[in-house]
Amino acid sequence: MPKKSRLNRLPGDAYSPQIHARLWLIGTDQKSYLGVGKVRLMELISELGSISQAAKTLNMSYKRAWTLIEEVNQIGPKPYVIKEVGGSGGGHANLTEAGLHAIAQYRELEKEFTVFIAQRTQNISL
Amino acid sequence: MPKKSRLNRLPGDAYSPQIHARLWLIGTDQKSYLGVGKVRLMELISELGSISQAAKTLNMSYKRAWTLIEEVNQIGPKPYVIKEVGGSGGGHANLTEAGLHAIAQYRELEKEFTVFIAQRTQNISL
Repeated sequence: MPKKSRLNRLPGDAYSPQIHARLWLIGTDQKSYLGVGKVRLMELISELGSISQAAKTLNMSYKRAWTLIEEVNQIGPKPYVIKEVGGSGGGHANLTEAGLHAIAQYRELEKEFTVFIAQRTQNISL
Repeated sequence: MPKKSRLNRLPGDAYSPQIHARLWLIGTDQKSYLGVGKVRLMELISELGSISQAAKTLNMSYKRAWTLIEEVNQIGPKPYVIKEVGGSGGGHANLTEAGLHAIAQYRELEKEFTVFIAQRTQNISL
């Protein structure tokens, strides 16, 4: 996404009209992290079984998707995405159990956060 | 801050070792927003009574601080920062009641969020 387009949009994701936020789960190494971009990429890989199709859906280069998956596979003690290089489809891929568990935890945190925000929002007056 | 330095640090602020986040309050115009950067700048202006000293403390250019204050003053129906241009100190400044109320709301949301995160963190295993 070109940098310029960011200037005219609100930061983060809208958890309510009045509160936007972004959440990251931090790996045990305190260096790697799982945010909504990696989660969405992993969810699409799980749905489509293909890194190239997941990348295309996100308007992301294949190279960028690979880099993100390399990062994703450093987050936990076990890899989250299993890649198979080559073949006519340009690389088949799937999530491991650890990967599915990681994205489930991210989405669960988001769900609880949404409830927290819904309770908070009525009090904000800027 | 140069872009490069961002590559080696974790995103957001550490609300726990396992969960980082960033929060923004959205203005009623659904275009302006108040995040931790603007809050910190406003807090320093309140403490120091000076835009240039607040900017210096944040390693921010005076021009950048002015731009942020212009944005801050669009968030609510009333301005948050009152500026006086010129003078030997390079411009005196103070927060309005609305500005103090806005940063208090941001910090209160953060405080409640910290409690929410503390309750959540024990369950995360990546």
